Amino acid sequence: MTAILVLHGPNLNLLGQREPGVYGALTLAEVDRAIAEHARLRGVRVECRQSNHEGVLVDGIHAAAEQGFAGIVLNPGALTHSSYALRDAIAAVAVPVVEVHLSNIHAREPFRHRSVTAAACRGQISGFGLHSYLLGLDAALACLSGP
Amino acid sequence: MTAILVLHGPNLNLLGQREPGVYGALTLAEVDRAIAEHARLRGVRVECRQSNHEGVLVDGIHAAAEQGFAGIVLNPGALTHSSYALRDAIAAVAVPVVEVHLSNIHAREPFRHRSVTAAACRGQISGFGLHSYLLGLDAALACLSGP
Amino acid sequence: MTAILVLHGPNLNLLGQREPGVYGALTLAEVDRAIAEHARLRGVRVECRQSNHEGVLVDGIHAAAEQGFAGIVLNPGALTHSSYALRDAIAAVAVPVVEVHLSNIHAREPFRHRSVTAAACRGQISGFGLHSYLLGLDAALACLSGP
Amino acid sequence: MTAILVLHGPNLNLLGQREPGVYGALTLAEVDRAIAEHARLRGVRVECRQSNHEGVLVDGIHAAAEQGFAGIVLNPGALTHSSYALRDAIAAVAVPVVEVHLSNIHAREPFRHRSVTAAACRGQISGFGLHSYLLGLDAALACLSGP
Amino acid sequence: MTAILVLHGPNLNLLGQREPGVYGALTLAEVDRAIAEHARLRGVRVECRQSNHEGVLVDGIHAAAEQGFAGIVLNPGALTHSSYALRDAIAAVAVPVVEVHLSNIHAREPFRHRSVTAAACRGQISGFGLHSYLLGLDAALACLSGP
Amino acid sequence: MTAILVLHGPNLNLLGQREPGVYGALTLAEVDRAIAEHARLRGVRVECRQSNHEGVLVDGIHAAAEQGFAGIVLNPGALTHSSYALRDAIAAVAVPVVEVHLSNIHAREPFRHRSVTAAACRGQISGFGLHSYLLGLDAALACLSGP
Amino acid sequence: MTAILVLHGPNLNLLGQREPGVYGALTLAEVDRAIAEHARLRGVRVECRQSNHEGVLVDGIHAAAEQGFAGIVLNPGALTHSSYALRDAIAAVAVPVVEVHLSNIHAREPFRHRSVTAAACRGQISGFGLHSYLLGLDAALACLSGP
Amino acid sequence: MTAILVLHGPNLNLLGQREPGVYGALTLAEVDRAIAEHARLRGVRVECRQSNHEGVLVDGIHAAAEQGFAGIVLNPGALTHSSYALRDAIAAVAVPVVEVHLSNIHAREPFRHRSVTAAACRGQISGFGLHSYLLGLDAALACLSGP
Amino acid sequence: MTAILVLHGPNLNLLGQREPGVYGALTLAEVDRAIAEHARLRGVRVECRQSNHEGVLVDGIHAAAEQGFAGIVLNPGALTHSSYALRDAIAAVAVPVVEVHLSNIHAREPFRHRSVTAAACRGQISGFGLHSYLLGLDAALACLSGP
Amino acid sequence: MTAILVLHGPNLNLLGQREPGVYGALTLAEVDRAIAEHARLRGVRVECRQSNHEGVLVDGIHAAAEQGFAGIVLNPGALTHSSYALRDAIAAVAVPVVEVHLSNIHAREPFRHRSVTAAACRGQISGFGLHSYLLGLDAALACLSGP
Amino acid sequence: MTAILVLHGPNLNLLGQREPGVYGALTLAEVDRAIAEHARLRGVRVECRQSNHEGVLVDGIHAAAEQGFAGIVLNPGALTHSSYALRDAIAAVAVPVVEVHLSNIHAREPFRHRSVTAAACRGQISGFGLHSYLLGLDAALACLSGP
Amino acid sequence: MTAILVLHGPNLNLLGQREPGVYGALTLAEVDRAIAEHARLRGVRVECRQSNHEGVLVDGIHAAAEQGFAGIVLNPGALTHSSYALRDAIAAVAVPVVEVHLSNIHAREPFRHRSVTAAACRGQISGFGLHSYLLGLDAALACLSGP
Repeated sequence: MTAILVLHGPNLNLLGQREPGVYGALTLAEVDRAIAEHARLRGVRVECRQSNHEGVLVDGIHAAAEQGFAGIVLNPGALTHSSYALRDAIAAVAVPVVEVHLSNIHAREPFRHRSVTAAACRGQISGFGLHSYLLGLDAALACLSGP
Repeated sequence: MTAILVLHGPNLNLLGQREPGVYGALTLAEVDRAIAEHARLRGVRVECRQSNHEGVLVDGIHAAAEQGFAGIVLNPGALTHSSYALRDAIAAVAVPVVEVHLSNIHAREPFRHRSVTAAACRGQISGFGLHSYLLGLDAALACLSGP
Repeated sequence: MTAILVLHGPNLNLLGQREPGVYGALTLAEVDRAIAEHARLRGVRVECRQSNHEGVLVDGIHAAAEQGFAGIVLNPGALTHSSYALRDAIAAVAVPVVEVHLSNIHAREPFRHRSVTAAACRGQISGFGLHSYLLGLDAALACLSGP
Repeated sequence: MTAILVLHGPNLNLLGQREPGVYGALTLAEVDRAIAEHARLRGVRVECRQSNHEGVLVDGIHAAAEQGFAGIVLNPGALTHSSYALRDAIAAVAVPVVEVHLSNIHAREPFRHRSVTAAACRGQISGFGLHSYLLGLDAALACLSGP
Repeated sequence: MTAILVLHGPNLNLLGQREPGVYGALTLAEVDRAIAEHARLRGVRVECRQSNHEGVLVDGIHAAAEQGFAGIVLNPGALTHSSYALRDAIAAVAVPVVEVHLSNIHAREPFRHRSVTAAACRGQISGFGLHSYLLGLDAALACLSGP
Repeated sequence: MTAILVLHGPNLNLLGQREPGVYGALTLAEVDRAIAEHARLRGVRVECRQSNHEGVLVDGIHAAAEQGFAGIVLNPGALTHSSYALRDAIAAVAVPVVEVHLSNIHAREPFRHRSVTAAACRGQISGFGLHSYLLGLDAALACLSGP
Repeated sequence: MTAILVLHGPNLNLLGQREPGVYGALTLAEVDRAIAEHARLRGVRVECRQSNHEGVLVDGIHAAAEQGFAGIVLNPGALTHSSYALRDAIAAVAVPVVEVHLSNIHAREPFRHRSVTAAACRGQISGFGLHSYLLGLDAALACLSGP
Repeated sequence: MTAILVLHGPNLNLLGQREPGVYGALTLAEVDRAIAEHARLRGVRVECRQSNHEGVLVDGIHAAAEQGFAGIVLNPGALTHSSYALRDAIAAVAVPVVEVHLSNIHAREPFRHRSVTAAACRGQISGFGLHSYLLGLDAALACLSGP
Repeated sequence: MTAILVLHGPNLNLLGQREPGVYGALTLAEVDRAIAEHARLRGVRVECRQSNHEGVLVDGIHAAAEQGFAGIVLNPGALTHSSYALRDAIAAVAVPVVEVHLSNIHAREPFRHRSVTAAACRGQISGFGLHSYLLGLDAALACLSGP
Repeated sequence: MTAILVLHGPNLNLLGQREPGVYGALTLAEVDRAIAEHARLRGVRVECRQSNHEGVLVDGIHAAAEQGFAGIVLNPGALTHSSYALRDAIAAVAVPVVEVHLSNIHAREPFRHRSVTAAACRGQISGFGLHSYLLGLDAALACLSGP
Repeated sequence: MTAILVLHGPNLNLLGQREPGVYGALTLAEVDRAIAEHARLRGVRVECRQSNHEGVLVDGIHAAAEQGFAGIVLNPGALTHSSYALRDAIAAVAVPVVEVHLSNIHAREPFRHRSVTAAACRGQISGFGLHSYLLGLDAALACLSGP
Repeated sequence: MTAILVLHGPNLNLLGQREPGVYGALTLAEVDRAIAEHARLRGVRVECRQSNHEGVLVDGIHAAAEQGFAGIVLNPGALTHSSYALRDAIAAVAVPVVEVHLSNIHAREPFRHRSVTAAACRGQISGFGLHSYLLGLDAALACLSGP
């Protein structure tokens, strides 16, 4: 059974209580349940993890293939805009990575418009709230199904 | 029956023969057929149009609601990077607009990293080839189904 | 009888329904009627046209003198910030052009502060809603009356 | 009777002898007489002052309402391009301020294109010589007559 | 017989009356006649078209090969400095495109120094008035004759 | 008895009526009374002055030591962002200067993020409303008490 | 009893031996003792922690409220200039955060002038050595006592 | 007898005590005496004034010709780098103005490299301490003696 | 007989062996022979020189007229992008100079897009390999034959 | 016996499988063995560690002297381009640090050209693959042997 | 007898015929004679040299002291704006160097405003035609006579 | 016997007397002797040359292979930061070039951080004084010994 790793970056553990006008009212647990349900419909296994530590995210990306994951859906949080280490980690592995964002980063403060990680990903999905993750899962599966 | 308008911007009529290494080997007709098939599965009606004229795209966005479209999937092509007129058109209408790109614009020339239109859209999907359109259709439907 | 051409650029056809907090609640038809009434008071003829097509605006500026217009009041809309073609069209004709804006472009997003067309115009009027057009008409007449 | 304050900034006392190719041949006294005549036609009272001191202009803006002025027409001269103190003074008072310029600042040296004061004004009028003041007076009255 | 398409961009229809100090005193008809005569000497067929519409130029580039043209000589006018759509159109077709300019764009306003279209052309010729077109025709023929 | 000079820059005389959402509802007189009370608790003498004139502030800084002040608490207002003259005045005197701001300048418009005067001060305190002045007084006293 | 969390960022563990000309001769233990003594005088409880790990600081900010802290005094060290993750963590919690710096960051290398974290804090205090922490504690208490 | 006005800008009244490593140990009175002595040798009359007020300097430049001065030697101090009002004042008068600086502004902080006033002066002399004024006096006399 | 000087700048002596994918497989000797043959067909005399020394190229441009050359075809090599001395040399002589480049500099690294020398030339030809020189020769002759 | 610490930053654990065209085919274990062998030849002890965590690298630099290391060879990986925390850690310790890179960072993407850490190191070695480490070890020893 | 070396940089050999509106009608020989006459009046020996070769100017600066020159008056021509080699040469020698320019570089094209060489000189004199050299000679002598 | 060419760029002939605090007290002759001794230990032949002329350095790089050199160690001096001609020369030859610097260019003035030549070299070594050359020689030999 195909397995997909979902990685949530810094501050996403506070979903629901963190600026709900921007990020929505769902908690991370609710988001993860919706992802799991969506994965079930698609017939794939999914595992969701969150960390506020850049190094833990890098380690997670490195280990994903060995742990049996065929693809990664990654919300790098604020590391999107500054972490070249994360970018190089994504470029270093063969597993396809799809970048997702809850909010539309192109409509927020200027520093959020630029993603240093997206260039190493297969693509980016931004602005659809919880649906960004669900679409990201579908996108990861599309990456696996062929060019 | 919900109807979605798919708008292809400049040069997308040449799909299949235009830099296939970047944009893929499918022709626009094949892309449109795949979108139509995807729409059928989702139970919605879809109409696809292409134009190389900025003004025609602006007119199309303005008229969409009156023509019965509930959402727009827009690939602005190269206008993504310079057309404030398109941006203002998107901001001027109530119909939700989803921006899509075949290639991962964040991994190409610097001038393609910045989208002046995305800020006025609900969100952006970039990098998944034909699947960017299909995911875009799903994203538009998600926008219609609630916050 | 002196005749003045009023040209409305992209998205101005949506006046009244387009971000009324920024652009006001008057429709374009109402704006045009107020301009016509103001022209009548000044004893001049006025013709108002709108287009979302840069090329149509360029063609209109080129043809104005031959069509008997002694001056042009131009609201380039979002083309203000990017259209060198419009700038060159204004510079290419002898008819004086006055640039007008409904909103105060200097108080909005940074990309709206800079006008690439104003340098080729006689001057610019920005921020007075409908009155920007009426003042623009008076300014065009002042340009005609002497240095 | 409605009263309007006209404030001339640095170097405008030299009008007529200062770069007449740019600023015209009228002296400041002649400009002020024309403004007064225009005000008379509009049925309003006008008072014109000039200062080369930023602080005097700031003081003048602060005191205007208390001195019975309902609006201000301000030509900040070169302070347009650098005076955040003037900008904050305009933002700090309820009296509407209209920024005017004799020359078309958008057609001159790059440093003159940007106005740091206009963002706090109701609007800006630039490029019509003496008429910039007369149009500015009309604009100020329009601001007073309603949205 | 080899056929070459000559495309004139925005405002070139006003040649002869438009800033003759910059663009020369010849009308577009006279320029086109000189190009035709030069083509006759080279034994090739030439067709000249002008448009103020970006979309029409993009359409023209797309259709050139099918219409039997082996090369294109393009003066994009002011679109040189902003039209990524034109750039992508040039990159999308196999027909060689030579960019030409009447004036020396490197000796004019800073915004004219940069060409966004030239990167997709075979080369650029700038500064020789009418001769830019004639040299452009020769350059297009050289592109056809081999590496 | 140690004496501290408190200098308020341009527009601070309008406190209470000037954008109360940003600067608070206290008037300058109320702020000065609170500072005086705080000084009394600390056992120091304080004198508060306000000016909208850069030159007056420069003169005040120059004369402070001779007038018996051991330290200066300075809110340069909008001059913070542009006045190199004020910066050089602070650098020219031996009296320690503490820069204070009512609002958090780092959370406002980009031009307010940068202070050209702070580099010549001992330090900067920003964002605590009236308390910025009280903390500034304590900071000045700390500067006097040793390294 | 009100409790305040003091967070020291990267490299502050080396205080006393690290560039004493810039950061002073006190060790972190001595700084923490002075903070504790100051807190005792103010009648509040204080806890001081240091980490060189961005993720640990983010975790600490997230957990502060639950651990009973009513405010945070944060010296982000070099993360001040690059950590959007820290900025978002501060913005995500309701506990007020006061940013402090030992040295006057505005008087050092250009990259230290800009704080990406301060925009999310209540305010910033910079340049008073150990006193920056003591003033920061007072500022945090002021934030708690009202607007 | 030819008369030259020497204008000292902000903070130059503190010469001798202000950063002597940069500006030298001479007081302004000593500088002025040396200038007077140099003028006596050249057979010209000189008057020296200092002000910390931009407006006073502008007024002084405006009035110079009427007061019988044939040339101006101006040290704008820190206003060199920001005062467009001073620049326009210099451009507005026919009297030749020579800009002088005690220190070599090109060898100091980056913001001091750029002079906004020098473009309107006849020339600039920088870096020779007291001698900058004496050379400036000679330069002003050279401007008077012919092209 | 009209004589034209062809000047090759730094590194062009290595043509044929230097990055042949960019500059082609012809040696400089072969290029010079082709130029000579083209000149013969045009009935003009040509002399070709190469130098890696900026000063030698400047000297060559200065001496050209005296040596009987009526025009110069110049490939400045990498000096194109940095040599203001070469630019001033071209501006200092009356002989028309045509700038040529083998490769399309607008399609290479960003630093090659900008020519500091072209502004002083009559025009620029870029991208046609050996033909750039032949077209440059024709362009120089066109410059000589009239406006 | 002199001991040197070799620190490998983020993603270097993937050497050999990570973009071998850029970083070579050797694994990190093979690199470490070659470093150890080189150290043996030089008569020094070496210890190699790798971490994907910025904080762990900072901790390692802090502890090096106490753990008996006389010098550090550091490959900061992607942290080179953004980690001011690492820069400050290097500046905070007395142990000399030599920065090394496998690839020539000056020949890669623009963001890799700039090192924020190198300024605090003794020097930088870049571009020689495994040999960068061996040369770095020699450089560290040279730093220890005298000025 | 004190000896001063005058170095003229690129293109100054063309004085009199090179853009006389900018550089004046005097030839270099006439300039050198005037310098010699001025030196005679000051009782010093002067030697004038010109070169279009950066390396020759660097060599000249290096050798000046050994050749008995006590000071250098240098007009670097266009090298002013780009030659770090010249800057380092000036910084490398103990002989004081005074930079001079015929025209007011601050009033010309933007690239001429910035001098990379002036930071290493004692000072700069710009804008007084031939007199810039004479004042430069006096300035060099002033540098020799004391601080 | 393998031969290596060592090229010293502008101003390096003054080593020992030129800013010894930055560049050390060794003369160039002493540096060259140390390089020769190091080469002897490595069993290779070395030849050292210095020039202040960019063209001579370009010529030297071009001729190196023919003169029997297998590698080049190049210290471009200040040309590092501006010479595209040198960069192209390095790129044009097959001989590997290693860039070296005595000082740590990343720790000096901002203009020295960027090397335009390093991108064409195999790598760069910076900051180790004389040892930069010795390490550079070893690096050149490593380049010769394999990938």
